[in-house]
Amino acid sequence: MPLPSGPEIFKDSSGRPFRVVPIAGLRHPWSLALLPHGDILVTELEGRLRIIRNGALDPEPIGGVPKATTQAWRAGLMDVVLHPRYADNHFVYLTYTKAVPAPRAESARPEVRNTVALARARFAGGAALADVQDVFVSDIRCGAACASRVAFARDGTIIMTIGMPRGDAPQDPATHAGKILRLNDDGTVPADNPFVGRPGYRPEIYALGIRNAVGLFVHPETGEIWETEHGPMGGDEINIIEAGRNYGWPVISYGREYSNQPVGSGDRRLEGMEEPFLFWNPSPAVGGILIYTGDRFPDWQGNIFVGALGAGSYLGARQLHRIELTGSGNPQRAGNWTLLHELQRRIRDVKQGPDGLLYVTVDAAEGAVLRLEPVETAPPGRTSRER
Amino acid sequence: MPLPSGPEIFKDSSGRPFRVVPIAGLRHPWSLALLPHGDILVTELEGRLRIIRNGALDPEPIGGVPKATTQAWRAGLMDVVLHPRYADNHFVYLTYTKAVPAPRAESARPEVRNTVALARARFAGGAALADVQDVFVSDIRCGAACASRVAFARDGTIIMTIGMPRGDAPQDPATHAGKILRLNDDGTVPADNPFVGRPGYRPEIYALGIRNAVGLFVHPETGEIWETEHGPMGGDEINIIEAGRNYGWPVISYGREYSNQPVGSGDRRLEGMEEPFLFWNPSPAVGGILIYTGDRFPDWQGNIFVGALGAGSYLGARQLHRIELTGSGNPQRAGNWTLLHELQRRIRDVKQGPDGLLYVTVDAAEGAVLRLEPVETAPPGRTSRER
Repeated sequence: MPLPSGPEIFKDSSGRPFRVVPIAGLRHPWSLALLPHGDILVTELEGRLRIIRNGALDPEPIGGVPKATTQAWRAGLMDVVLHPRYADNHFVYLTYTKAVPAPRAESARPEVRNTVALARARFAGGAALADVQDVFVSDIRCGAACASRVAFARDGTIIMTIGMPRGDAPQDPATHAGKILRLNDDGTVPADNPFVGRPGYRPEIYALGIRNAVGLFVHPETGEIWETEHGPMGGDEINIIEAGRNYGWPVISYGREYSNQPVGSGDRRLEGMEEPFLFWNPSPAVGGILIYTGDRFPDWQGNIFVGALGAGSYLGARQLHRIELTGSGNPQRAGNWTLLHELQRRIRDVKQGPDGLLYVTVDAAEGAVLRLEPVETAPPGRTSRER
Repeated sequence: MPLPSGPEIFKDSSGRPFRVVPIAGLRHPWSLALLPHGDILVTELEGRLRIIRNGALDPEPIGGVPKATTQAWRAGLMDVVLHPRYADNHFVYLTYTKAVPAPRAESARPEVRNTVALARARFAGGAALADVQDVFVSDIRCGAACASRVAFARDGTIIMTIGMPRGDAPQDPATHAGKILRLNDDGTVPADNPFVGRPGYRPEIYALGIRNAVGLFVHPETGEIWETEHGPMGGDEINIIEAGRNYGWPVISYGREYSNQPVGSGDRRLEGMEEPFLFWNPSPAVGGILIYTGDRFPDWQGNIFVGALGAGSYLGARQLHRIELTGSGNPQRAGNWTLLHELQRRIRDVKQGPDGLLYVTVDAAEGAVLRLEPVETAPPGRTSRER
């Protein structure tokens, strides 16, 4: 069905109604950041940073954005995140695919001249970014879709994912490929990172053994770092990332190689490696992740929301998953409800606004930002809302 | 949404339209068998065998059906299958949960007084079965939902599943629990069964290491035996059953125990045990299985159809899966489309009629048999169908 052109009532797979409000039409929107006063920054994968001002998309992209390489259909301008003290310092962070002048001499694929970088800039609501600076440029060379997300940990450091869907590099501590990094807000290395001073380890590394991490969320109450990543065929995962841990790719996995051969060791559990919190088979091609903590959807508090991108032929693809953990916290007993199934669109990002509402990006050539709102119903026998 | 009360157009998740025709309303229909002249036999789990004659449900259940024990909500009268030479011999087979007079002395749970049996009878279209006889009574004692399906192999032998969702018995060759059996059409043991004469093995055993096998299909062209089974949490499977093989339960599995502990060895692959052809996580609680070979849905030829029962909170539950294998036959690259998602009902059985149409049982207190038909569309610019 077409994307809604005005507010429309949908139901999730449990029959619960909610309202979908289209906010803006965009081209391959990847991520969004909600500014304190209600404006919304949105990245478009092809390299544009857009802004929705007072509910309307500014037709002019924001100026000063670093040039993102967009040769691969999933590479380009990716995440946009505000500094936790944005109101004071107006710092905005962007992750993007960056051309590098020359390949590394030792590169197995010298034709690959792209890496992933983190830029910081000041943005106070005007027409352009100011003080734009790459605060961190990774050492990877990526010829495919190497996703990169950032989020601020509660201690003010930056958690950054460096996806690497191919090869064994996620186990190699001498490269950023397939890792979760931890950086200071100026891109430098925190002295208390788990591998600082260990020979052969990049000091930025916080956790290893990551495939293509497409979602990242720091829980505002617990501080836990939640991550989603794509498996190959099968084995999409949710992980809770802890310092110094190894999440196993490509040694252990619940998925299989595209050749249908087992991954790595063929095992799914090995001493010293972490199993996922949750995995899927077949893979819906997960997107962004969020744990809802607002008060506008009281029944959804503590639910995990995960976007799903994959081809519509994959079970669970192209919708928004709502994962409801049971009282025991046993993830395998979680309910897995879905929203927006009717749209059959790639749901890339999901964010909670300061208003307690949910915002998603629909990643398509004719994509959109949608807001999800509760449908308030008056109690029986009353004519006005009294809550 | 309510079940359709008349023919209604649905679309599958790929947008392909098809017509759903309600054939009859039934109470917990489990399995159905299509008689040569278009009548349909349907088992109701609570112990009734019903017949749809000339498109209308006979209000009187068929007489002479062996008494099925229905103490557990998923136990009772289960499968109904015609003999391959039904037109000549009018043999009908039923699987059911049968009370046994006394527990086995060695039973760990002496209060459990039910087993699974296979009855054979003659039915030529009248009001009752004739010559009803238990041709095989298994040695299991089942206090839960031990599913049992039967299908005729191309050599005329009976393949019979004996589900056992609890305990280690599926690895014990001295019991029928958690096995695929092979029987002659009179219930005796074929001399060429794989374990005949091997000490400690029940001679009926064809394959071991099965959990709760809820679906069974013999491919009419290849003779392959396709089976679906329930994992615990995660790990629902499709297997292709071969003589003498061990399918691993409860030693290897992609699922987890309800306690969230790993199953058995914690491995998913071990020498001498078979991995599934396909598995799911989370588990949709699969139902019956069919590979479509008719000509009424040309695009669906070779597709695997699998019903899904589970609670609506589980991804993929309560609908009919259509699994489209790619040219390479790589199951992990299969498309997984779904049908009847809108109904949110337990789809228990799926069968192909002699008319090339699909028939499903909707397992609910107010359940149904539905027929799926193609929607013929006239070519553009023509007013009549010319194909």
